[in-house]
Amino acid sequence: MSEKARPRIALDAMGGDDAPKSVVLGAVDAAERYANELQVLLVGDGTAIEQVRPARELARLGIEIVQSSESVGMGESAATSYRRKQDSSIAVANRLLTEGRADAIVSAGNTGAVVTASLLGLSRIKGVLRPAIASIVPTVHGRCLLLDVGAVADAKPANLYQFAVMGRVYAETVHGTVKPRVGLLNIGEEREKGSDLYKQSFRLLEERAEYLNFIGNVEGRDVLGGDVDVVVCDGFTGNVLLKFAESIIGVVNGTIRKELGQSLVFRFGALLMKPVFSRLKSRLNYEEVGGAPLLGVNGIVVIAHGSSSPLAIRNAIHMAAAMAQEGVVAKIGEELSRELLREEATG
Amino acid sequence: MSEKARPRIALDAMGGDDAPKSVVLGAVDAAERYANELQVLLVGDGTAIEQVRPARELARLGIEIVQSSESVGMGESAATSYRRKQDSSIAVANRLLTEGRADAIVSAGNTGAVVTASLLGLSRIKGVLRPAIASIVPTVHGRCLLLDVGAVADAKPANLYQFAVMGRVYAETVHGTVKPRVGLLNIGEEREKGSDLYKQSFRLLEERAEYLNFIGNVEGRDVLGGDVDVVVCDGFTGNVLLKFAESIIGVVNGTIRKELGQSLVFRFGALLMKPVFSRLKSRLNYEEVGGAPLLGVNGIVVIAHGSSSPLAIRNAIHMAAAMAQEGVVAKIGEELSRELLREEATG
Repeated sequence: MSEKARPRIALDAMGGDDAPKSVVLGAVDAAERYANELQVLLVGDGTAIEQVRPARELARLGIEIVQSSESVGMGESAATSYRRKQDSSIAVANRLLTEGRADAIVSAGNTGAVVTASLLGLSRIKGVLRPAIASIVPTVHGRCLLLDVGAVADAKPANLYQFAVMGRVYAETVHGTVKPRVGLLNIGEEREKGSDLYKQSFRLLEERAEYLNFIGNVEGRDVLGGDVDVVVCDGFTGNVLLKFAESIIGVVNGTIRKELGQSLVFRFGALLMKPVFSRLKSRLNYEEVGGAPLLGVNGIVVIAHGSSSPLAIRNAIHMAAAMAQEGVVAKIGEELSRELLREEATG
Repeated sequence: MSEKARPRIALDAMGGDDAPKSVVLGAVDAAERYANELQVLLVGDGTAIEQVRPARELARLGIEIVQSSESVGMGESAATSYRRKQDSSIAVANRLLTEGRADAIVSAGNTGAVVTASLLGLSRIKGVLRPAIASIVPTVHGRCLLLDVGAVADAKPANLYQFAVMGRVYAETVHGTVKPRVGLLNIGEEREKGSDLYKQSFRLLEERAEYLNFIGNVEGRDVLGGDVDVVVCDGFTGNVLLKFAESIIGVVNGTIRKELGQSLVFRFGALLMKPVFSRLKSRLNYEEVGGAPLLGVNGIVVIAHGSSSPLAIRNAIHMAAAMAQEGVVAKIGEELSRELLREEATG
């Protein structure tokens, strides 16, 4: 098996609310489960890492520890931490990528710090105006890609156009979706709906409707409906929507639990229905997805949730490996340079 | 009992996907249930209305029919329909209000047409820059007011400031919330988070933090959490979020139903848990709320969902009556003129 077929994932051991514990456990899980598919490099404080799992066990699983002496706190300013903490786990992980010692990065750390470090450390793919964070949202039929969910709060129409191109590439290559349907998130289906940003973005996407397989405007209610594969929006709207969506499973769970306390009959019913609830939870659970790919930077970066469980970390590692195997970065580069050539030819 | 204590609600009989049927049934329900609290005026095509319920029955319930010869379709342009259809049910309902023959309007019709007709027919409350549609969102502890959810897609900081003032008045007077907590929807808690619009709005709200009881930025996950009473946002973000939220009950229901088909044990469990599901559904169900008040126009207007059931119509009528009884319009006017005086004094 070639090295390429077993991508090396640089995992930020110090990022996340429960780091390094959940991260190390997730790494162990991934290394065991996907031994033939990937390799894990744990980047962080070796002493802290080895307190979670002994060095011998990690070595047996082929997990390499790459020492870094600093880490970026969840509340720290992204720009400041990047300038000052050149030996932070996320900065070291970035260097592993640029030096060709790793093929992808996974971090559950401070999202702003991860985005800044990736932008400055890896730089953008040629032609990309702004990178986007894409979120994989479970739908009634499968999943859809929602982007951007937080990298670009003040987006321009050209950004949204590129998000559509990058999202399409991701859905095609990683999800294996044939001719993914691309929709623009909006407040109505009609073309003249929405804010100025969305009206202009609609026109831009419509011009290249066939190439993008652009199906037009979609609304909030369509995101989970399963009839669209890539939903394009600005990072403000996407972030608000994603965080709202992530909170729902807790609300539903909490409401049901409270009711169960009222009666033994309810609890017996719930016991009988347990597999149903497990399936529902696993469908709506963002843990299963693992992480959000940062698309547009010149390297593979997967951002995991700050409160990632070991399962979420394992899945984020697997996602990063899939992106490396499918060569997503190169494919985004090809699509965008073709677009640039087209613009030069027509403009 | 004075006339004021029994507000007259002008109900747009021709608005809604299933009009006039659901609307008339909702009117009958409201007139029976709230006979001592309100009066219903059904505005629309008398013949069509009487096909749903005979004139005699409506008369017995004190429901008056006000004839209008036209109606605005769900897909029609708001501005065009207002100019051309002076005898549409929504235009006639507006005239009833301006002529003092009704105290509030309820419509499940084309939202754009209702907003335009209200803006042009009733005009804005003095000092109001743009009206907002407010949505009552059920939360884990009770409910919160989310505004704007679609009237102003391109909002300015001053709009968001006024939405906060109007939302506070509504929560205080109609919900009876003492010192409602006002939050700004954003993509992080820190003050420098978000798009330019939200950074500037934060500063504006912060200046008057004590008056507004402004608790700072809230995130998507906080909307259902019950720790904020009024959530302020632009109409684009609010509309996307609301439509997404409305779709969830269907997704959860659909997923559970599909699973139940797999096993008799699951179905028996579900039978035992039926009251739990009913409670969950009624908590998350937007029908129970009834409608969304349009705040900032010089009259009471409640916009019901296009697919409103009779129950939703009934609740929207009751909401409109409560707004009339509490004098919400006058109170918003007082707050905003106080604000204008303050600005003149300080500026």
